[in-house]
Amino acid sequence: MGDVRCAVVGLGRLGSRHAYNLAKNVKGASLVAVADVLPESAEKTARELGVPEWTTDAEAVIQRADIDAVVIVTSTDMHAPLAKKAAEAGKALFIEKPLSLDMEESRAIVEAVEKAGVYCEVGFMRRFDPAYQEAKRRIAAGDIGRPLYFKAVSRDPQAPPESYIPRSGGIFVDMTIHDYDLARFLMEREVTEVTAMGSIVHSKEMEKYDDVDTAVTYLRFEDGAAGDIESTRNSFYGYDIRTEIIGTEGSLIISGVQRHPRVQVWKPGSGTYEIEPGFLERFEMAYLAEMVSFIERVREGGTPAVSVRDALAAQAIAVAADRSYREKRSVSVEAVSVTA
Amino acid sequence: MGDVRCAVVGLGRLGSRHAYNLAKNVKGASLVAVADVLPESAEKTARELGVPEWTTDAEAVIQRADIDAVVIVTSTDMHAPLAKKAAEAGKALFIEKPLSLDMEESRAIVEAVEKAGVYCEVGFMRRFDPAYQEAKRRIAAGDIGRPLYFKAVSRDPQAPPESYIPRSGGIFVDMTIHDYDLARFLMEREVTEVTAMGSIVHSKEMEKYDDVDTAVTYLRFEDGAAGDIESTRNSFYGYDIRTEIIGTEGSLIISGVQRHPRVQVWKPGSGTYEIEPGFLERFEMAYLAEMVSFIERVREGGTPAVSVRDALAAQAIAVAADRSYREKRSVSVEAVSVTA
Amino acid sequence: MGDVRCAVVGLGRLGSRHAYNLAKNVKGASLVAVADVLPESAEKTARELGVPEWTTDAEAVIQRADIDAVVIVTSTDMHAPLAKKAAEAGKALFIEKPLSLDMEESRAIVEAVEKAGVYCEVGFMRRFDPAYQEAKRRIAAGDIGRPLYFKAVSRDPQAPPESYIPRSGGIFVDMTIHDYDLARFLMEREVTEVTAMGSIVHSKEMEKYDDVDTAVTYLRFEDGAAGDIESTRNSFYGYDIRTEIIGTEGSLIISGVQRHPRVQVWKPGSGTYEIEPGFLERFEMAYLAEMVSFIERVREGGTPAVSVRDALAAQAIAVAADRSYREKRSVSVEAVSVTA
Amino acid sequence: MGDVRCAVVGLGRLGSRHAYNLAKNVKGASLVAVADVLPESAEKTARELGVPEWTTDAEAVIQRADIDAVVIVTSTDMHAPLAKKAAEAGKALFIEKPLSLDMEESRAIVEAVEKAGVYCEVGFMRRFDPAYQEAKRRIAAGDIGRPLYFKAVSRDPQAPPESYIPRSGGIFVDMTIHDYDLARFLMEREVTEVTAMGSIVHSKEMEKYDDVDTAVTYLRFEDGAAGDIESTRNSFYGYDIRTEIIGTEGSLIISGVQRHPRVQVWKPGSGTYEIEPGFLERFEMAYLAEMVSFIERVREGGTPAVSVRDALAAQAIAVAADRSYREKRSVSVEAVSVTA
Repeated sequence: MGDVRCAVVGLGRLGSRHAYNLAKNVKGASLVAVADVLPESAEKTARELGVPEWTTDAEAVIQRADIDAVVIVTSTDMHAPLAKKAAEAGKALFIEKPLSLDMEESRAIVEAVEKAGVYCEVGFMRRFDPAYQEAKRRIAAGDIGRPLYFKAVSRDPQAPPESYIPRSGGIFVDMTIHDYDLARFLMEREVTEVTAMGSIVHSKEMEKYDDVDTAVTYLRFEDGAAGDIESTRNSFYGYDIRTEIIGTEGSLIISGVQRHPRVQVWKPGSGTYEIEPGFLERFEMAYLAEMVSFIERVREGGTPAVSVRDALAAQAIAVAADRSYREKRSVSVEAVSVTA
Repeated sequence: MGDVRCAVVGLGRLGSRHAYNLAKNVKGASLVAVADVLPESAEKTARELGVPEWTTDAEAVIQRADIDAVVIVTSTDMHAPLAKKAAEAGKALFIEKPLSLDMEESRAIVEAVEKAGVYCEVGFMRRFDPAYQEAKRRIAAGDIGRPLYFKAVSRDPQAPPESYIPRSGGIFVDMTIHDYDLARFLMEREVTEVTAMGSIVHSKEMEKYDDVDTAVTYLRFEDGAAGDIESTRNSFYGYDIRTEIIGTEGSLIISGVQRHPRVQVWKPGSGTYEIEPGFLERFEMAYLAEMVSFIERVREGGTPAVSVRDALAAQAIAVAADRSYREKRSVSVEAVSVTA
Repeated sequence: MGDVRCAVVGLGRLGSRHAYNLAKNVKGASLVAVADVLPESAEKTARELGVPEWTTDAEAVIQRADIDAVVIVTSTDMHAPLAKKAAEAGKALFIEKPLSLDMEESRAIVEAVEKAGVYCEVGFMRRFDPAYQEAKRRIAAGDIGRPLYFKAVSRDPQAPPESYIPRSGGIFVDMTIHDYDLARFLMEREVTEVTAMGSIVHSKEMEKYDDVDTAVTYLRFEDGAAGDIESTRNSFYGYDIRTEIIGTEGSLIISGVQRHPRVQVWKPGSGTYEIEPGFLERFEMAYLAEMVSFIERVREGGTPAVSVRDALAAQAIAVAADRSYREKRSVSVEAVSVTA
Repeated sequence: MGDVRCAVVGLGRLGSRHAYNLAKNVKGASLVAVADVLPESAEKTARELGVPEWTTDAEAVIQRADIDAVVIVTSTDMHAPLAKKAAEAGKALFIEKPLSLDMEESRAIVEAVEKAGVYCEVGFMRRFDPAYQEAKRRIAAGDIGRPLYFKAVSRDPQAPPESYIPRSGGIFVDMTIHDYDLARFLMEREVTEVTAMGSIVHSKEMEKYDDVDTAVTYLRFEDGAAGDIESTRNSFYGYDIRTEIIGTEGSLIISGVQRHPRVQVWKPGSGTYEIEPGFLERFEMAYLAEMVSFIERVREGGTPAVSVRDALAAQAIAVAADRSYREKRSVSVEAVSVTA
């Protein structure tokens, strides 16, 4: 089979990264078109990566007959309309997380994808990180016995710009959703109930959007296992992602504070480790592996590594957490899945 | 001034440790009597440590004119009656945590101590650990800016024997109380509200005592700072105590998984680090420093490193957490302090 | 420009890795032929990687008009004859280290390459490792001030099979040569004198080949800087590669004992870190980056990342070390470069 | 038995530390006199530590009938005359390393001590460090199989003042001697031959004293095991002491770069670990344990933890290394032991 002919729609920081990987690093992929609402972004990306065509018309690109796969990295509100069009046009699809900010809309995407029978993967890139892959293998190999407790910490180096807050969906849907996905991925069971708490410890401007800059979600799983997740927007020392599983025979931790753990610089009054500046650096290999896997599965006809159903399940937990925080009570995930 | 003449009352694992340190390691202290309800324990300790007298009559020992200081390490229900007698007899006092299982009783101890004007310290030994001391210094030096978030993990290698559970006071009062004390010690401000959740993930026998083997307490501090504490009874891989503070200019972590961090053994299929088997090993230096400090302050007339008021404050948080867990709602600490 | 059409000659462990990377991972490369003296190796590789042609006739493949680049990973004694033929045929070349076991022969390769004016790179893959790349950047950025001392440890998990020893060139030429190359790469100056010592601490069979299983090389650099390198064949705990530079303002260490440094498993009596089993695992990314760089430079006409002159310089140090060990005296590298 | 009545002679940085520990920390010891050539030092120490008497007359103090033990921490040239007098007076002795700068003189100390039959210990404090103690235990327990290779790095944060260099005995006798002692302590066999190399990489002033600021000693042990030791005077990033043993079933490393390994501060652009500023900090616990052990053995009549024979053996290795460096050849340790 020839190369998978791809288009990337949406060229922000992450869209540009996907475009770069498809153009330069992923063997078996050809990046044939890029689109962005800003013509200068589209033109610049096309020029730098040697992409034959660029446009501001995302819908047009999606429907081109010579495109096999569409990678959607637009603002979240555009995910559903574009995904539905692409599915109807029979394209293989990659959609960034979250599917949407609204359960109803996300369910519509799932429906469109399943009706069209197209390949569709959602961008929970942490699953592709070598450390998370290794963790998955070791749990499967029984290295820690039966998993009993899931613990995660996700810390961004700074709060997003104020303009982003009202359209982020709130800390649980925008940020903690990665950890909800990991909880399902690593514990291999469903979350049944969540209790969420939050505070503004620094970013006072969040108050007017009824959002918080630090939150804890307590998780209950279907078989009695439990867990907790801390989400912090203002981690002034750097980007820090950690995940830990306690099992009946051991414990496993994935710790993200070190960027180049094999290089240490010792200086008087200075540091041993580089601290990760942000997600693009911490998950550099994950983003590449994600695209490699996407192209490989599209070429060889496999099932998605992260399906729309997975994305929907993570979103249901996030919506339940958001409701729990607001209503100051524990909330059943199933109730949200069915009715929200 | 001559040596401080001490008696240790209660010779379980921890009482024996205090007796050993006073007899062998603490310059300026003389251990002149030990007492335990089991005569064989008292006799054995006296013999091994060269202590001149042993008895099963704790009250008698407390009132001896030639004793300057009494270290009370009995079961928790005996703390209040013995402490009151010792205070009335004008003795310097060291009492293990918690003061009691009941706020009323603890307040009575505080009153007795303050009325008698005796020196009285409570055994929150973590404060004396070199790492916690260093953390305190670095926070005071402004190394992490203004503290915004307190995070703690406390994991025991196994649940206590079933017989202990009903008289433990529950996970919050028995175990998490150390972390409530550290929260006050390191954040240097009061906790105003707690929300607590818990689950039984392994020790099914706890169900009949309405206790849990894993819990999370969410903390709100008086100035808007927040925090969370995980307490786990069944940490099958070892004893693991970690504390972390996120500040406006950095973050600080005290991590407890390494016992001899300077010795690493690399072997095929085996491990780099020793894991702490339990609190006596992890806090070996803390227990010694605690007794050294106690004797020094008694000799030199200082104020207690950890006062009965500190102990009462930690207990109020624990009681509020316990109530929060049971009533499934956030609970104000002040309400408990006043009325519980 | 279209893909670079490559042939890999020699399909041992490392040749197979290069073939795999060129076929599957390196965008811009086409692997069109593989050759090995064992027909079953050649056939198997061709089949598994979808390579159109395989052969046992290395010379024939080298001279094919439709091949742009040849990757030589044969036994060391075949490097010179094949490299000369390929250079005369105008092919871009990649040769595994060492160029040869004989300075005269290596000089002949250099001459052939320079006369033909072809691109030729030598396989010192450590330079491509992300950690070594980062180290290079940080030294260049002045992070450790002026480098004063170079220190390296290279430990193989076990001695090679006895049959390999007599044709290895000895520990200095076969193994330590990687560190001599790193010394030049990271210190950015030439080694002028070496003093080498060695012992057999375990592999008694080496005695009959006048080789050793552990050695230390002391280095003097042209400007007074110094260094030492330990080479150990029997590192029973795993593959362990470390490099360290002490500078006037700090120190930098690249440490190789951790394979998946972000995943730690804590278990009673077991280990925290995975130990690297061998060079293919430790330098997995380096081998890939090396091929990516090779293809990119061939396509875009750059100069080799590691030239034949670099390889010759490292070999001269190795030969001087070998002579120093045998003659129990310090040996000038320049003398070897000129006369050996 | 009552307290051991001690005198400390010599109150530089290390003498003051020993005096402090004996006065304040070591139960069972009474510090009854201190002496120093500088009256203000002696007076100040006596005042601060509450020592009843101070003097500038070391000999007088040594001979006082009411003194049980003398701790000699003077300049090295005074060790022999004072040690001999103290031995003749029947005192228990603690002497700082090295015994002397001259093998003949050291042998005279050994003779005096053995003739008088007094307890005499030499100050190789590293043996008392908790990490080295743990290493010793683990090797004895067979954790790494049979030890094959000894590796050490000792780095001082800066070269000594120029005035000290000519009376230091040179880098091997002054500094590396600690590692020679550790080699014997941990490998539990004798060093038979050394080859030493050195360079001045920074402290040009050493040239006039024929000394170097960085050196490597290659060790051969009696049973074929080997080892190497790096000694560096200018470790600009901090004090760094590491020791490593490779065995047939594993490897063990004692690493000294972390002062408070349980406290990590993460800040943007800053460091994770504290670096040890110097030996008093790194070996704080070792110095205390050393004095505790000394007093305990004197009280209970045990044999010295580090005997004068041990000190003599380490010195012989150092003298052989110094000779090897000067004569550019390997030197037998036995030859030095017998004739130097």
